[in-house]
Amino acid sequence: MAAQRYKLTIAYRGTRYHGWQRQAWVDSYKGERPPDGEGIPTIQETVWRAIVSVVRHPISLVGSSRTDAAVHAKGQVAHFDTDQLQIPIVGMRRAINARLPADILVRKIDPVGGSFDAVFSTLSKRYQYFIWNAEDRPAFFPDLAWHRWQELDRDAMRQAALAFVGEHDFASFAKPGHGRENTVRLVHCCDVSWRAQKLVIAVEGSGFLWNMVRIMVGTLVEVGLGRHPPETIAGMLSAKDRRAAGATAPPHGLYLQWIKTAETATGVPPPPEAVG
Amino acid sequence: MAAQRYKLTIAYRGTRYHGWQRQAWVDSYKGERPPDGEGIPTIQETVWRAIVSVVRHPISLVGSSRTDAAVHAKGQVAHFDTDQLQIPIVGMRRAINARLPADILVRKIDPVGGSFDAVFSTLSKRYQYFIWNAEDRPAFFPDLAWHRWQELDRDAMRQAALAFVGEHDFASFAKPGHGRENTVRLVHCCDVSWRAQKLVIAVEGSGFLWNMVRIMVGTLVEVGLGRHPPETIAGMLSAKDRRAAGATAPPHGLYLQWIKTAETATGVPPPPEAVG
Repeated sequence: MAAQRYKLTIAYRGTRYHGWQRQAWVDSYKGERPPDGEGIPTIQETVWRAIVSVVRHPISLVGSSRTDAAVHAKGQVAHFDTDQLQIPIVGMRRAINARLPADILVRKIDPVGGSFDAVFSTLSKRYQYFIWNAEDRPAFFPDLAWHRWQELDRDAMRQAALAFVGEHDFASFAKPGHGRENTVRLVHCCDVSWRAQKLVIAVEGSGFLWNMVRIMVGTLVEVGLGRHPPETIAGMLSAKDRRAAGATAPPHGLYLQWIKTAETATGVPPPPEAVG
Repeated sequence: MAAQRYKLTIAYRGTRYHGWQRQAWVDSYKGERPPDGEGIPTIQETVWRAIVSVVRHPISLVGSSRTDAAVHAKGQVAHFDTDQLQIPIVGMRRAINARLPADILVRKIDPVGGSFDAVFSTLSKRYQYFIWNAEDRPAFFPDLAWHRWQELDRDAMRQAALAFVGEHDFASFAKPGHGRENTVRLVHCCDVSWRAQKLVIAVEGSGFLWNMVRIMVGTLVEVGLGRHPPETIAGMLSAKDRRAAGATAPPHGLYLQWIKTAETATGVPPPPEAVG
């Protein structure tokens, strides 16, 4: 019988996890525990176990974004294949969620065509970074926002953020060792907005380099502190040198908001020609 | 030199703690670790250590409400005495907060007269209980709300809540072993409000019995589930028997919002006649 591919949309609080996937891993491992990690699970491993316990055969779970340790997601995308077609979608989602811990939630399961791929079908992504900008710390969510008690020039940050919009070489805004030859990326928007203590930096783009959003945020905060004028972003970009940009913001303020993917023919069971 | 009494207003996320104070403790201990508890700290102990490290002498820290393990507070009130009058209030608050973990915050320190007492000066308190009423669990704050996925008749809950308002014997709504002879309490208001998935039950009163708000909430949820009509609350109250009321809601949805206290003469240093 033909296998069916499913697209998952997943939310998680990254605090307790070693990221979506340890960087050294290969994408499609078949259930062996990684040699390192000392018992700290990854999101991928945890979701993988829940799905396998429902479909009762080994799967390969491919995620769209390798979020780092402590980074959160409201809309991570992943895919897997199964021939367990007798389980209805609603029941499968409930069964998987019942096997997941309280800080991971499968929000949606959609049947997709076999040419859908969580990595290669990605069209664009949105990240948000949450800064708690007040003298007092956020005692109820210390792991969900970056606390900056200093006064920040928010208008200067908003102005500086505009310099990121468009197609640029983001070599200065990538962690060395990112392993990408091409560091040119298209940023659709980069907005700084706020309401009282809550400061949010939202970035949308076709793709991101390792730590790119966190270095952008760290740099914008330095602009907010008056260490650089907003106009310096352009020069930092053209330097193509990590040392030209600001510090990397910590992971726990970062949220993967959503991922837009090119959808393929869907339906259970799928037409045979659509199965990869 | 005369001692000065300070009133503290404290916020905390109760998740990691054994409550404000273990129930077996006496109020004014002088720094000995309790025999049980296995290394899980209390809020009181943690705040006590921070203050002692700032004022550099033993103190007695008296809290207004003994919140249970996992219960949160936005405005717990406590008091202590010190003769360290050379530390300005702003500096003292910063120094104490710098010595506290990320999930406890001293929001305010006010000098008060020596007749002020966190327990006996309390006039009224407000608790709020936060229910996440949606099919999907709250993956970002599983320890800050009670997840009820069932559909709840919110209007029935609101109507039932009104029966708690006024002066009643709350013996049916107290955990056995509460140790109070008089179980009559005055509830000023009991409101059920909501916005989308977020359901909040707010209760204000002159004082509360052990687990009283949690049993009220558990009972109101049973009304919302259709297990009791809203009119049964009156009969539960008049039964004066714990078995007449509903189940106890879990602690992690409960917040001590504020405590209204009778303020006494304030100022640093205080007039000598105001020092207890």
